[in-house]
Amino acid sequence: MKASELAFMLGGTLEGENVEIVACGGLEEAREGDLSFCKDPKHVKLVETTKASAVLLPHDWSHGAPCAIIRVDDPNRACMEAAKIFAPPEPVRAPGIHPTAIIDPSVKIGERVHIGPYTVIEKGTIIGEGAIIEAQVFIGENCVVGAKTHIYAQVTLREGTRVGADCILHCGVRLGGDGYGFNNGRREDGSVYIEKIPQLGIVEIGDGVEIGSNTTIDRARIGRTYIGPMTKIDNLVQVGHNVKIKGYSGLIAQSGIAGSTEIGYGCLIWAQAGVSGHIKIADGVQVGPQAGVPQSLDGTLKYVIGSPAVSMKDLAALTLAPKMIAKLKAEVKELKAKIAQN
Amino acid sequence: MKASELAFMLGGTLEGENVEIVACGGLEEAREGDLSFCKDPKHVKLVETTKASAVLLPHDWSHGAPCAIIRVDDPNRACMEAAKIFAPPEPVRAPGIHPTAIIDPSVKIGERVHIGPYTVIEKGTIIGEGAIIEAQVFIGENCVVGAKTHIYAQVTLREGTRVGADCILHCGVRLGGDGYGFNNGRREDGSVYIEKIPQLGIVEIGDGVEIGSNTTIDRARIGRTYIGPMTKIDNLVQVGHNVKIKGYSGLIAQSGIAGSTEIGYGCLIWAQAGVSGHIKIADGVQVGPQAGVPQSLDGTLKYVIGSPAVSMKDLAALTLAPKMIAKLKAEVKELKAKIAQN
Amino acid sequence: MKASELAFMLGGTLEGENVEIVACGGLEEAREGDLSFCKDPKHVKLVETTKASAVLLPHDWSHGAPCAIIRVDDPNRACMEAAKIFAPPEPVRAPGIHPTAIIDPSVKIGERVHIGPYTVIEKGTIIGEGAIIEAQVFIGENCVVGAKTHIYAQVTLREGTRVGADCILHCGVRLGGDGYGFNNGRREDGSVYIEKIPQLGIVEIGDGVEIGSNTTIDRARIGRTYIGPMTKIDNLVQVGHNVKIKGYSGLIAQSGIAGSTEIGYGCLIWAQAGVSGHIKIADGVQVGPQAGVPQSLDGTLKYVIGSPAVSMKDLAALTLAPKMIAKLKAEVKELKAKIAQN
Repeated sequence: MKASELAFMLGGTLEGENVEIVACGGLEEAREGDLSFCKDPKHVKLVETTKASAVLLPHDWSHGAPCAIIRVDDPNRACMEAAKIFAPPEPVRAPGIHPTAIIDPSVKIGERVHIGPYTVIEKGTIIGEGAIIEAQVFIGENCVVGAKTHIYAQVTLREGTRVGADCILHCGVRLGGDGYGFNNGRREDGSVYIEKIPQLGIVEIGDGVEIGSNTTIDRARIGRTYIGPMTKIDNLVQVGHNVKIKGYSGLIAQSGIAGSTEIGYGCLIWAQAGVSGHIKIADGVQVGPQAGVPQSLDGTLKYVIGSPAVSMKDLAALTLAPKMIAKLKAEVKELKAKIAQN
Repeated sequence: MKASELAFMLGGTLEGENVEIVACGGLEEAREGDLSFCKDPKHVKLVETTKASAVLLPHDWSHGAPCAIIRVDDPNRACMEAAKIFAPPEPVRAPGIHPTAIIDPSVKIGERVHIGPYTVIEKGTIIGEGAIIEAQVFIGENCVVGAKTHIYAQVTLREGTRVGADCILHCGVRLGGDGYGFNNGRREDGSVYIEKIPQLGIVEIGDGVEIGSNTTIDRARIGRTYIGPMTKIDNLVQVGHNVKIKGYSGLIAQSGIAGSTEIGYGCLIWAQAGVSGHIKIADGVQVGPQAGVPQSLDGTLKYVIGSPAVSMKDLAALTLAPKMIAKLKAEVKELKAKIAQN
Repeated sequence: MKASELAFMLGGTLEGENVEIVACGGLEEAREGDLSFCKDPKHVKLVETTKASAVLLPHDWSHGAPCAIIRVDDPNRACMEAAKIFAPPEPVRAPGIHPTAIIDPSVKIGERVHIGPYTVIEKGTIIGEGAIIEAQVFIGENCVVGAKTHIYAQVTLREGTRVGADCILHCGVRLGGDGYGFNNGRREDGSVYIEKIPQLGIVEIGDGVEIGSNTTIDRARIGRTYIGPMTKIDNLVQVGHNVKIKGYSGLIAQSGIAGSTEIGYGCLIWAQAGVSGHIKIADGVQVGPQAGVPQSLDGTLKYVIGSPAVSMKDLAALTLAPKMIAKLKAEVKELKAKIAQN
């Protein structure tokens, strides 16, 4: 698209060459053919060195640019609008069932459902209206998929899994795998045994939940592993059996919640953090990146960090320990000298 | 099922309303229609506030409950029995090969094997009797799957992988991917090169091993990556090339074992822990959650924690450092004052 | 293969029994039928206790062995040669499209391409010549796969993903999933909202990139998530939206790079390390195992470790804190005693 056309669509004015624009990108990553944006003169250096072909700038920008300029009221917003124009078109998943999908006759399918090629749906399952189930998905027996829920390619739902409405499950999500549970010990004759504990429960996902690629959520030992409404889970997260996440919480990439733990409303578990089993995290608590939480958090601390997790202040004190020790060492040395003098 | 019927089946006696029970659950997570349980009067608060419709309690429970009560000898055991009644029925995987499975004519298949839809099995592979291979599995050339092993949907086994008898591989398990191995450096002309090191070995899994969803185990550079019998591996675990796990060990979710490391018998590697490459962990050692083990552990320490990993006592000392420093600081200040007085 | 035949092929000389050799393996893991190797007399103990049936040793080895010996010039190299002989034969992926592959008529496929069974390729996608796409792969609309790129079974590429030439994508790789992005807050009436931010960009992978099993790389919010040429990524790694990895870098297993971060040329991010979002890691910097990097690294430190990440020296000082504190405590006690005496 020509820069002039883009300027017209975004309600801006073009200065400089009427270049061809094919994509959007940040100032630093932009290449020839890209449209970038800058709002704040403090990033003038990035504008001066960008390889973008055009840049969205505010009307009062006085520092120029090494490429075409499109002046607009709000560069950030304009770039989001432009991004929509250049985004790969969202694939149309029209209602209909691909002839290669293998669906048990007992499965109940709502109206306007899309089911992609090579997907397998087993007996007793219910698919809500408007749901999109893409290619190569596996849905076991007696599952429920809510209305308008979107399941991307190569997701697996083991038997009995219940997913609410308006959910998004990204590629490779695994719901309902057996939780990790074994009894072990020694028999009277001294031999070791390891016995699998049957995992007899299910996974239940509330409405509006999004689950990232390759995340795994285990079925309950008994009862339900529960992910409450509007919870947003990132990629490669592990949720153990019988975990209960009340809702409106976020679990960032590669974090893990061990079995039977309860996460309150509005919590945020940051990347690579781990929460131990059989504890409770109070509403609104945030667990920082890579933090390890060994025991319940009642909400007195709103943010914990470190492993074992403590307050920001306490982690800072720990981090400063070497410096404090060096200082004390010098002081003690000085004292020794003084005493020796006396 | 009516509570009265359930009481009869569990050998208990019903007190209160003959409610309809549809599921089991812990006291806190239970909802209307759920049966819960409590053994110990110290959890009386949880019983008082439960939303379960009925609760299993011991004969001598004197605190009442806000719902129907079923008195039994052993509430925990009774609840496990009840859970089996309400569990989603385990799907029947009858012997037989789905017509859409693509199986090379050279594949040897034992008796009573189940192979699901859209599964692909390549030439030279051997499937033991009674094995269950579910939908959309990929098994490459010259693999071996032992008797009664259960492979869930969407598992991949690269060529040459050997899995023992009575194993369970959960959805998304990846066995036999290339290990991470590259030679790199600079050529005489100063240019950088990165060369792939061929990964010529295989993965071999012993009998009775269970592997969790989306866990990855790399093929050896030469020889075998070996997971010994009865080892239990959780979800999202990474096992590098040429690792040797002797057997009867556990690897909890999101832990990782780097290449060529040996894990002894009866070890437990807790969640998110990491073990470096080319080291040995002695029999029976436990590596705590999020611990990082940089060097071999000979068994002198039975449990390590922290990163780098140390004893519990040493980690406690580190955690206490800020407090100890504050105390020393006060003492030094006092000494200074005394000396100044003198 | 007889040991004598093997000795002939490796240009060595056999001493002892002409045993049958079926595989290669390290001295400690080797079993009956295995060929092992040792170069250095300092590992004589391992040779003495190996269960290998034959061992490759240098000509001047004077310590004997408990099995057949094959003397060669370079035992390590000879073992690599032997490993190639015993390696499971690499499956032949002859050019051709499996009849069960579902490929939109608009897809452009280069010469000598292999496409395996049950693979789905959607409209507008381009597959370069000589590419190998194995079984059960999903490639969405308008993707590009470069020449000679090898995609193993059960990989998914969401719409618009671009993969360069000579890349390797291992089983379960997920490219182009939505990045984690939500706006949330409270409405005027006090109710909480969580809104998905559209993820309008793509993933672009340079030439010669290898990506390990079950690794996830998110599409950009706008523009591109970019993995530069020759970058080597291990298993279970997470790369967030809009990350830019310039090239020739390595990301080891279970590491994670948060959104919009830039990784320079020739960096190495070790296992389970985490790099925060919106920062820059300078060329050639290494982030140690389990390290957590909260802010940009300009290259002053070539290696960081710990969480939050610091220099090796600083981590050592922190680790030593308890010891230093104990020493200071003793000194302070001594000083107190002296002052009391005065």
